[in-house]
Amino acid sequence: MDKKALTALLERVKSGDIAVEDAVARLKSEPFTDLGFARIDNHRGIRQGVAEVIYGAGKTPEQILLIAKKMLKNGEKTVLITRLSADAAAQVGRELPLTYHKDGRIGIVGDVPAPDGNGTIAVITAGTSDIPVAEEAALTAEALGNKVARIYDAGVAGLHRLLHNLDDIMSASVIIVIAGMEGALASVVGGLADCPVIAVPTSVGYGASFGGVAALLAMLNSCASGVSVVNIDNGFGAAYQASMINHIRSKA
Amino acid sequence: MDKKALTALLERVKSGDIAVEDAVARLKSEPFTDLGFARIDNHRGIRQGVAEVIYGAGKTPEQILLIAKKMLKNGEKTVLITRLSADAAAQVGRELPLTYHKDGRIGIVGDVPAPDGNGTIAVITAGTSDIPVAEEAALTAEALGNKVARIYDAGVAGLHRLLHNLDDIMSASVIIVIAGMEGALASVVGGLADCPVIAVPTSVGYGASFGGVAALLAMLNSCASGVSVVNIDNGFGAAYQASMINHIRSKA
Amino acid sequence: MDKKALTALLERVKSGDIAVEDAVARLKSEPFTDLGFARIDNHRGIRQGVAEVIYGAGKTPEQILLIAKKMLKNGEKTVLITRLSADAAAQVGRELPLTYHKDGRIGIVGDVPAPDGNGTIAVITAGTSDIPVAEEAALTAEALGNKVARIYDAGVAGLHRLLHNLDDIMSASVIIVIAGMEGALASVVGGLADCPVIAVPTSVGYGASFGGVAALLAMLNSCASGVSVVNIDNGFGAAYQASMINHIRSKA
Amino acid sequence: MDKKALTALLERVKSGDIAVEDAVARLKSEPFTDLGFARIDNHRGIRQGVAEVIYGAGKTPEQILLIAKKMLKNGEKTVLITRLSADAAAQVGRELPLTYHKDGRIGIVGDVPAPDGNGTIAVITAGTSDIPVAEEAALTAEALGNKVARIYDAGVAGLHRLLHNLDDIMSASVIIVIAGMEGALASVVGGLADCPVIAVPTSVGYGASFGGVAALLAMLNSCASGVSVVNIDNGFGAAYQASMINHIRSKA
Amino acid sequence: MDKKALTALLERVKSGDIAVEDAVARLKSEPFTDLGFARIDNHRGIRQGVAEVIYGAGKTPEQILLIAKKMLKNGEKTVLITRLSADAAAQVGRELPLTYHKDGRIGIVGDVPAPDGNGTIAVITAGTSDIPVAEEAALTAEALGNKVARIYDAGVAGLHRLLHNLDDIMSASVIIVIAGMEGALASVVGGLADCPVIAVPTSVGYGASFGGVAALLAMLNSCASGVSVVNIDNGFGAAYQASMINHIRSKA
Amino acid sequence: MDKKALTALLERVKSGDIAVEDAVARLKSEPFTDLGFARIDNHRGIRQGVAEVIYGAGKTPEQILLIAKKMLKNGEKTVLITRLSADAAAQVGRELPLTYHKDGRIGIVGDVPAPDGNGTIAVITAGTSDIPVAEEAALTAEALGNKVARIYDAGVAGLHRLLHNLDDIMSASVIIVIAGMEGALASVVGGLADCPVIAVPTSVGYGASFGGVAALLAMLNSCASGVSVVNIDNGFGAAYQASMINHIRSKA
Amino acid sequence: MDKKALTALLERVKSGDIAVEDAVARLKSEPFTDLGFARIDNHRGIRQGVAEVIYGAGKTPEQILLIAKKMLKNGEKTVLITRLSADAAAQVGRELPLTYHKDGRIGIVGDVPAPDGNGTIAVITAGTSDIPVAEEAALTAEALGNKVARIYDAGVAGLHRLLHNLDDIMSASVIIVIAGMEGALASVVGGLADCPVIAVPTSVGYGASFGGVAALLAMLNSCASGVSVVNIDNGFGAAYQASMINHIRSKA
Amino acid sequence: MDKKALTALLERVKSGDIAVEDAVARLKSEPFTDLGFARIDNHRGIRQGVAEVIYGAGKTPEQILLIAKKMLKNGEKTVLITRLSADAAAQVGRELPLTYHKDGRIGIVGDVPAPDGNGTIAVITAGTSDIPVAEEAALTAEALGNKVARIYDAGVAGLHRLLHNLDDIMSASVIIVIAGMEGALASVVGGLADCPVIAVPTSVGYGASFGGVAALLAMLNSCASGVSVVNIDNGFGAAYQASMINHIRSKA
Repeated sequence: MDKKALTALLERVKSGDIAVEDAVARLKSEPFTDLGFARIDNHRGIRQGVAEVIYGAGKTPEQILLIAKKMLKNGEKTVLITRLSADAAAQVGRELPLTYHKDGRIGIVGDVPAPDGNGTIAVITAGTSDIPVAEEAALTAEALGNKVARIYDAGVAGLHRLLHNLDDIMSASVIIVIAGMEGALASVVGGLADCPVIAVPTSVGYGASFGGVAALLAMLNSCASGVSVVNIDNGFGAAYQASMINHIRSKA
Repeated sequence: MDKKALTALLERVKSGDIAVEDAVARLKSEPFTDLGFARIDNHRGIRQGVAEVIYGAGKTPEQILLIAKKMLKNGEKTVLITRLSADAAAQVGRELPLTYHKDGRIGIVGDVPAPDGNGTIAVITAGTSDIPVAEEAALTAEALGNKVARIYDAGVAGLHRLLHNLDDIMSASVIIVIAGMEGALASVVGGLADCPVIAVPTSVGYGASFGGVAALLAMLNSCASGVSVVNIDNGFGAAYQASMINHIRSKA
Repeated sequence: MDKKALTALLERVKSGDIAVEDAVARLKSEPFTDLGFARIDNHRGIRQGVAEVIYGAGKTPEQILLIAKKMLKNGEKTVLITRLSADAAAQVGRELPLTYHKDGRIGIVGDVPAPDGNGTIAVITAGTSDIPVAEEAALTAEALGNKVARIYDAGVAGLHRLLHNLDDIMSASVIIVIAGMEGALASVVGGLADCPVIAVPTSVGYGASFGGVAALLAMLNSCASGVSVVNIDNGFGAAYQASMINHIRSKA
Repeated sequence: MDKKALTALLERVKSGDIAVEDAVARLKSEPFTDLGFARIDNHRGIRQGVAEVIYGAGKTPEQILLIAKKMLKNGEKTVLITRLSADAAAQVGRELPLTYHKDGRIGIVGDVPAPDGNGTIAVITAGTSDIPVAEEAALTAEALGNKVARIYDAGVAGLHRLLHNLDDIMSASVIIVIAGMEGALASVVGGLADCPVIAVPTSVGYGASFGGVAALLAMLNSCASGVSVVNIDNGFGAAYQASMINHIRSKA
Repeated sequence: MDKKALTALLERVKSGDIAVEDAVARLKSEPFTDLGFARIDNHRGIRQGVAEVIYGAGKTPEQILLIAKKMLKNGEKTVLITRLSADAAAQVGRELPLTYHKDGRIGIVGDVPAPDGNGTIAVITAGTSDIPVAEEAALTAEALGNKVARIYDAGVAGLHRLLHNLDDIMSASVIIVIAGMEGALASVVGGLADCPVIAVPTSVGYGASFGGVAALLAMLNSCASGVSVVNIDNGFGAAYQASMINHIRSKA
Repeated sequence: MDKKALTALLERVKSGDIAVEDAVARLKSEPFTDLGFARIDNHRGIRQGVAEVIYGAGKTPEQILLIAKKMLKNGEKTVLITRLSADAAAQVGRELPLTYHKDGRIGIVGDVPAPDGNGTIAVITAGTSDIPVAEEAALTAEALGNKVARIYDAGVAGLHRLLHNLDDIMSASVIIVIAGMEGALASVVGGLADCPVIAVPTSVGYGASFGGVAALLAMLNSCASGVSVVNIDNGFGAAYQASMINHIRSKA
Repeated sequence: MDKKALTALLERVKSGDIAVEDAVARLKSEPFTDLGFARIDNHRGIRQGVAEVIYGAGKTPEQILLIAKKMLKNGEKTVLITRLSADAAAQVGRELPLTYHKDGRIGIVGDVPAPDGNGTIAVITAGTSDIPVAEEAALTAEALGNKVARIYDAGVAGLHRLLHNLDDIMSASVIIVIAGMEGALASVVGGLADCPVIAVPTSVGYGASFGGVAALLAMLNSCASGVSVVNIDNGFGAAYQASMINHIRSKA
Repeated sequence: MDKKALTALLERVKSGDIAVEDAVARLKSEPFTDLGFARIDNHRGIRQGVAEVIYGAGKTPEQILLIAKKMLKNGEKTVLITRLSADAAAQVGRELPLTYHKDGRIGIVGDVPAPDGNGTIAVITAGTSDIPVAEEAALTAEALGNKVARIYDAGVAGLHRLLHNLDDIMSASVIIVIAGMEGALASVVGGLADCPVIAVPTSVGYGASFGGVAALLAMLNSCASGVSVVNIDNGFGAAYQASMINHIRSKA
């Protein structure tokens, strides 16, 4: 149950639409469910506005299934599974209504919510090889209720390929820049945009790219203000924060 | 001239409050001013909503003065100077109305604008030694028009010191977490908050902290979702992006 | 022969329960047995209180068998084999009464002794993927005569999952904290517990976790006092030292 | 107030030796005192058995004085200040009864408690240059109520210098091994001792010692079981954990 | 004596303008002069077209003077001294006709030759702090007979500041790009230019710039073709190779 | 369409050899073609003199085919594909006239142009294992219109093997030095040659060669002037720049 | 032809035992043989006393065969092939009289010469897993004419296992110490021995051993004088230098 | 007392030249002298043939004096002090007959013994800045009884400067190669010489030389056989081993 659902429930209590005892029953779930190998954080939706996400890497299909089922039972409408291998997806899909996106290794059980953010999240990649990470980001953002604009293979070695999408850049609410090799795209986009830029270094490259370290360092040292960075290949993390930013409402 | 000022000017043109030729005169500034050793980006305010900031490190007091004067002449109301040494501040202060904050090495020429963001930016440090970076962040955020809540020395070795401020954490619009050593505070706050967390590793520590690298890596690998990272000791960068986030308006 | 057995033997000599020459026969083993490819340290039990442990990685099943048989012949009651692959376990199991624990890659020939330590060793993991290292630690601790409390998937991104076990933490004699990614759990537990904490970084993670380096550095820089660290994925080493601590008797 | 004092107080309540309201007055201190720049953890003594220690590096003499005075006012009998420069010590000494140990950069306000541990903590260094770190450890251990045996300049290049102290090694409750350069001493001592060994790499050396990294890695990879490691030059941390170990009582 | 001078001498021999024995006298210099602390490579001018350059760092003013005098005596018309401190320059200047450029720490004894290359070498910096390295490059290039175009503070955070000089970029024969921090400028210029780009990372930056490593890695991984790299802060090396390129004549 | 073709077309317009509208038709290609997963930079030939090259690593054979066909359709006469696996080559070869060079993993569709550079590019390797990178360089250079001299297995451990080719070294226009391990060859050749040397570190070696880092660092620190460096194993990049240098014409 | 053979030949010339022209014929071999992919250094035996050794890694069995046959044809009596895989050995063995040592991946074509050194080379390993590197060293030493003493699994965690061989250590001419993990054995042996110690770090270990880096750094920082180091896993290199040392004759 | 002196004494006992009790008196020194801060290894001369050397760095002049005096009292004829600052030398020189060599920071109390090795130790540097390390090596070698040939500034960028000394290289018993930057000299000399080469990387250089790491890695990866390496700037260590090698006598 996330914040939105909690608020709706309480309003139904207030209006008499639901009996107090029924509301209690729905609310009295324990704060976490201990499956032995995993402790599902049931209150995360209330605390942070988004239900727990299943990180598929290093979990068996059986473990993923158990967690997903428990979450559905707890009332989640969308269960997002990241780093899901094709094999595990096949196995999960036999028991649950899973939509699997191979490129981004993302599985979604249930419905993708309608976008309700402040605006659009632009996802820009430097090259073709960065697309898997970009799709992880884009699909996560969509699963969290955001409109996404995809701009792929727009690296700085051919600036006109990027400037072609200047309107998308200028009108975005948040931008996720995804690049391996020297990661220069983050600085160039950061210098053009007037919204927060979240940079994702990728492990694309060879030799002195050191599995993404070159891009990571470049992004951390960006001469453009307004750029922050997440872990190498962490498309999910970038999208998660981007979604938070895209859903900020005035608390003034 | 920033976006707000530009909009105001154009509305005065529309209302006839100012003659077209006078508006043209004000607008016809070149996109950058070349001082030989520096090219001031005059359009950054229009493009990104915030005028260029002077990075004081590695510039002589004379260079800083020249740039600040040119910016004031170009119509900026607030000139923010970061990494400003006490000596340079003294020299700048002799010619311009400078307010100097020694802790955060921040100098501000002109007025600090009234807060006009969506909510509050919380600045949390793990220890006492992180305060200089925190002040760089807090003062920058204030100079960019944000309300700031300071929570200092709230590291995870005594969790109750942090949980004491749970309300501030839960009600913030953006949180900047500043920590050296093992940087664990970012993950703990990231797990509690429902808003974006920008983590700033600091060079506080010794031995295997490697000048902030330990904290940097910890923050990049945070198990909490919604955490992004900026460069070691980069209080300014964190505040700049936090301010962008705190000023997001719906573009829907 | 370990210290306990040696003491018992000498007391039997003293009480006349065994003839001196028989005791001599049992004691006159050479200090090490040279198998050519390995030198078994026969005196380690006397010197250090625990017989040599077989590190299975990089040894052939034949070599493991030879060493284990020699140790049994030397009078060891429990032979602990770490980093034992399933294949090697199958082969060893054909000739010796081996109990194999797949999760922790631990094989035990003979009986697990009854716990005789000062108290309980708590083994806490941050996530599900850390469980193999945790099982290596927990099974080692049990094989060395300790009572173990397992607390798995209690990472700091959901503090309540950890605080749920506060009693276990406060009542432990030693705590082994096992975490990959940013390793923050060590600091949080270190700040809560009043007993020694041995931190084990794991190679769980990706990108800038650098195979466990991020967690290792975090743990070395822990802001909590009373935390020491062993090698990445070294569950055995942590348990070995924890057992030493848990068996300390007053020498005053 | 630490655990021992708390227990004593409660026993006086039980015996009627002190009025309940007076006990309440003494106990009702807030869990932490916020000095603005620092939050003193007043409950650490109760929670962890040892009052907070002041880390002097990066604090002004004024800040150190303020914290020390507050701690004394809160009833602490011994205030330990680590990484205290000679200059700061002089200033603190003008207002408080400080004993300053220059070698170990340790200041102690108040009395050093009588040793009440299980046995002796041996502090062994490889060379002469490691002595400052060793003194930080030895003095901390003494301030925390431990008997300490100092064995300095006993590096492995002349094994007989170490073996000369074999009795001290075999009879210790805990051993702290302090070495820079290649840090081999930790493995040799770890192979001889039957008690926990805490290894402290030091920044002693040049070239490829990389400020202690060579020794740190060596110690993390020790082929001797029962060795754990703390941060480079962290004599305090080693002594703190050693004291915890030396004070373990049976919880069985 | 360099190639040009050698060719001229031989042509004078051919034309009878100089007696054979006089030419022999000039040519019979030994291939190197051994000063004990240094061996001056007298044939480098003939072998490589440019006389040896004095690397001033780590040499005493006396050593520099001795080498410079010997080179002048050997017939060099221009002696280039790099990394020359102001103090050493003062001392050298007392005995030799030295022109000293403080910004680039370059000293030149004798005349700067007229430009005779294929075209212009453009020297572009990302920021103001990169100027010392740029001046080392620009002055070296001029001393080696090249026309130089200086374009300073044209970093990618404000692309229009760079595009303003698009003509200079498109018409250069070789471009030297000098940048610290994330070094993105090399890729952007590399994507625009049709001539070789030599990238010089600088140690400008802080934190995760690691003294120029971030820029170095970025430049090595440039997604733009035609970019090669020299050592951090090595303005001289870049200019030396740029001059070689700018003087290439058809050997077809 | 590259510069040469563009110039030829415009001269035919001038001479009336082609109708203006036909020329327009040929020229009005969009600056890039967006294939979704890739944006082909159609203007790169005009801007940089060489058409885009297909980097085969991380692209599917289908993607490579699509890009290659589009480039051929755009009028390219030679399509160079680097890092092309044998499998992908087989698949591409079924639809396009591909010449595949297994050693250098290079595929070429169409004709290799006749050499038209200033002179010869020498490609020198230290060992036998460096040959694949050398072939990537040599074949790329040939595909870009250069004459190439191959000198393989001429490492410095047997100097006479290198000096045997002194004439080739002295007469080259550009030299590409390819070496793994300690990379000393670059300095030795750099000290002999009077033309630019581009050094390519290779990942040949083991242990402390760290996948080419040892050679990379050696080459960046070369004591010979006139040496620049490209990424580890980047034979293509070295050849691309070498070709630029070999085609420099006077712009004076 | 090596030095010994050359000397013998010349003495036969002197004594008239062979005609001058026949000697010339034998001597007039070219200094290297160019096979295209490799240049065999034919003079290395004369220059350095030992014929070229074939490094098998990264060469095809065909290449190895070609080189070996050429060397035999040039008169070599022993051809040493290192890093030879079992598969390649099988293929080489079908055409040449190869003795293959699987443990050390060493192949020897021809006879192993009788030992003719100053004394014995001791090869000591810390553990069982270091044996492959040790065998590479021991077999190489034997192939180069040395008597070898093997002492395996004598790590410092059980000092008596090492001290058992104190006589071998004290009587050796050169000692090769081979250890992974923390590499402490080199320092302990270095402190005991009165002959040169060559330390070989191995890639044995896991986690923070970083593939041998921990041992490498430890050995470089050895507190024992008289220890030098070769590359990780470079048993061959250590043996080669040890053989040189063991064959030193007085040149006084 | 070293081996030579011990042998002489015993021969005097044998010949009746000295009374047994007098010999006993001289021999009954304890194996080490404990000065509290240092343990002098009195048996090292007997065990290793060379008396302990005082490493001056990190010792006070008073400590150095105490150790030196004790060693003289123990009968040492030559006391070698390395890394001795000029200030400490002045202070030591006031009480003991010290010869101080500023370049190599070496102090020698007593006489330098006459050379008695197998041949000459050649000390070769790549540049002028490497001379301090070279002098540490050369003076140490001389103090240990070796003849030394100094060849300075013979780097590979001008090969003829090195080849000029080919005779010295070919006739040496051991060669110490000292180089910073890319350290290529070790490989070139290693390829020419027929004796052991000990390579000393120096911290000379800047940027990506990383304080000697580039040279260290290069030397560890040398393609020339017969090269071993010591720590960065460790001239003493190289000379110590070189002297051992130069004094090897046949033990056959």
